[in-house]
Amino acid sequence: MICEILCVGTEILLGDIINTDAAFIARELASLGFASYHQSVVGDNPARLRAAIDEGLRRSDVLIITGGLGPTCDDITKIAAAEAFGRGMHTDLDVKRDLEEFFAKIGRPMTENNLQQAEVPDGATIFYNKWGTAPGIALDGEIDGKMKYAILLPGPPSECEPMFVECAEPYLRKFSPHTIYSLNLHLYGIGESGAEAILRPMMEEAVNPTIAPYACEHEVRIRVTAFADTLDEAKVLCRQTADKIYETDVAPYIYTETDTPDDAKNAVVLAMIAELRKHGMTFASAESCTAGMIAARVGDIAGASDVLLGGIVSYANSVKENVLGVPADVLRDYGAVSEQCAGYMAEGARRVTGADIAVSVTGIAGPGGGTPEKPVGTVCFGIADKRGTETFTVHFNGKNDRSKIRRLTVARAMMTVIRRLGT
Amino acid sequence: MICEILCVGTEILLGDIINTDAAFIARELASLGFASYHQSVVGDNPARLRAAIDEGLRRSDVLIITGGLGPTCDDITKIAAAEAFGRGMHTDLDVKRDLEEFFAKIGRPMTENNLQQAEVPDGATIFYNKWGTAPGIALDGEIDGKMKYAILLPGPPSECEPMFVECAEPYLRKFSPHTIYSLNLHLYGIGESGAEAILRPMMEEAVNPTIAPYACEHEVRIRVTAFADTLDEAKVLCRQTADKIYETDVAPYIYTETDTPDDAKNAVVLAMIAELRKHGMTFASAESCTAGMIAARVGDIAGASDVLLGGIVSYANSVKENVLGVPADVLRDYGAVSEQCAGYMAEGARRVTGADIAVSVTGIAGPGGGTPEKPVGTVCFGIADKRGTETFTVHFNGKNDRSKIRRLTVARAMMTVIRRLGT
Repeated sequence: MICEILCVGTEILLGDIINTDAAFIARELASLGFASYHQSVVGDNPARLRAAIDEGLRRSDVLIITGGLGPTCDDITKIAAAEAFGRGMHTDLDVKRDLEEFFAKIGRPMTENNLQQAEVPDGATIFYNKWGTAPGIALDGEIDGKMKYAILLPGPPSECEPMFVECAEPYLRKFSPHTIYSLNLHLYGIGESGAEAILRPMMEEAVNPTIAPYACEHEVRIRVTAFADTLDEAKVLCRQTADKIYETDVAPYIYTETDTPDDAKNAVVLAMIAELRKHGMTFASAESCTAGMIAARVGDIAGASDVLLGGIVSYANSVKENVLGVPADVLRDYGAVSEQCAGYMAEGARRVTGADIAVSVTGIAGPGGGTPEKPVGTVCFGIADKRGTETFTVHFNGKNDRSKIRRLTVARAMMTVIRRLGT
Repeated sequence: MICEILCVGTEILLGDIINTDAAFIARELASLGFASYHQSVVGDNPARLRAAIDEGLRRSDVLIITGGLGPTCDDITKIAAAEAFGRGMHTDLDVKRDLEEFFAKIGRPMTENNLQQAEVPDGATIFYNKWGTAPGIALDGEIDGKMKYAILLPGPPSECEPMFVECAEPYLRKFSPHTIYSLNLHLYGIGESGAEAILRPMMEEAVNPTIAPYACEHEVRIRVTAFADTLDEAKVLCRQTADKIYETDVAPYIYTETDTPDDAKNAVVLAMIAELRKHGMTFASAESCTAGMIAARVGDIAGASDVLLGGIVSYANSVKENVLGVPADVLRDYGAVSEQCAGYMAEGARRVTGADIAVSVTGIAGPGGGTPEKPVGTVCFGIADKRGTETFTVHFNGKNDRSKIRRLTVARAMMTVIRRLGT
């Protein structure tokens, strides 16, 4: 079965939003074992949308369409898809009732155009939308003598992603001949080319599982991917290959493993939380340039309250001094971006929150504020626990933008906790 | 002139990377005044790539192709594009010399396959690449009796983006008859369908500028887009239309305006910072469920240090009590998720940081932790300034995931500051 993705939205054609729906769905399709040879984007124009649907259904078996399902007159995807399958439209009473209940609950009048969302193609499978108001839709039928399938999902990623996983995947799974499983090994402190140079002989020999290095912003991932008849078999294959990777020179850089895209994205924070739990320790942060990003990333993880006590965002020097207890003469003599200050910040966060371990960051994220001695990208770190306090300075590449320097700082702070607890 | 974008890369089809090239180029094309009705992605397959090039050149005047220009055997874009224009290939000696110099400089032997990057279509315009090794290429010629243009750029965003700006834009500018400008009106507290119901008569009449509502996670944007010969004329047209929108019933919901995608993304925090500056006030947060996201979002904005003093992340009750001074009996009698607690949190943040205004949030972001009286999505807010302290509770839809509830909470907290200062 060949799948392809069609995203509908003038805002994508104008570059106002980045098409993350396509990337998300592409990844999920790959993990289900479907081939995908095309992605496309069209705007809210009926003729061009219809032509794109016809073309997608001609060259692929399953066309996944996102966007254009909402209540406005620009939302024309359902009608175009129904036409492509030669279907009429009718009102789905369950969707209509859901809409009425939704507006009653939020206490806003339901305008007439909202009812458009309850119009569905005849013979369609309806995916009720728990994350928004527009339902998803699956259509199937013969076109030019071949069975074809279309799956329509809302455009906003906060609706598209969960609806793909909860509604479209179970629908698609029946067409999938085998299972793919991927295991990610996460490496910190080595580059992609360095990892690849070590693993190249293994990579070239690998058929199933395959081995692929993948450079992320702050780390390198080695993705081990196996095909098999069952998930358990695929997992065993991946485990055997991963064990061989642990026998190579990349082993000291591997800090954790994940096997879902969400966990991979959160690998550093999940690994830090796991280390804290293993040691039964609580955590706090003292943050200047990251302004709360470290604590917020821990709070992203449901159930982190057993380790996260809190943190102090000390953006202004007055807060460093008055809340965290950084001595005024340290700020005067060494400046806010100094290891001395970072050390007091970490100790202060540990003292005021009562956490077992605290990490601090204070730096220059740019684009302004750099000096010849402390250029943009200079970040001082501190870590304090019952064994004492340590500080160090990292010079991130100042050509990176503010937001990347801050994200790299967050990852480094968490890796510092992981390695402190792991040794 | 109609442009379209074709991105070549199996890694995009697999979802391994997000197609930021398309979004970047789309935005630049819009700002140059080009219409763009299609984007597509194909992999490193010669037949499918050639079919996609033919289709793009059939339906548009200018086809911008990214990716597949490198040294490996998968890099087939140049040959496919040359074939589409009926051209042969030759070695460009300047590119060859650049390659040799590049490898001499980095002290690595140049493998034979690198020379493939010096092969260019006959009659092509070459864009020398200062950011990598593969040159960009422009081709023009008659296809089926019409002049058509193709611009080929490397795939990595660090090469594609500067090469588009420095090489492709000057090449394209000669075709651009006019400029596009978009003004976004940001609305809070009204849904997309509600806004559209009010604006539909204007939307239907609008030709230039056009008016389009756009639902974002926490707000609705009305995008007013004008074409004109000059940027100034386009701005005047948008202003006139925006002024008419301010005469409708959506006016009370408009909280700010932006005119770049980056500012649009940050509209709430930029509007809050602007209000704080207007009043010469400093800001702090006290955050439980958001765990630092509010302060971090303010810190995202370069130069926010004139308003952001800092914040307290009080994830644990002990931090609410010991750092923010929430009385133990309030926590015991009303719980951490209560307006009483939120009020003390906001006052505590204001007191310990010395900020002029502080906002607090304490809630249940889920998925666990909900109770019948306080289901997932219940968030209590507090705001404290010299006029006193106010608190209120919002019940976000508990079906939303943790991360969305927290993002909605951040937006609501900032809107609370904007409206408190605006009244």
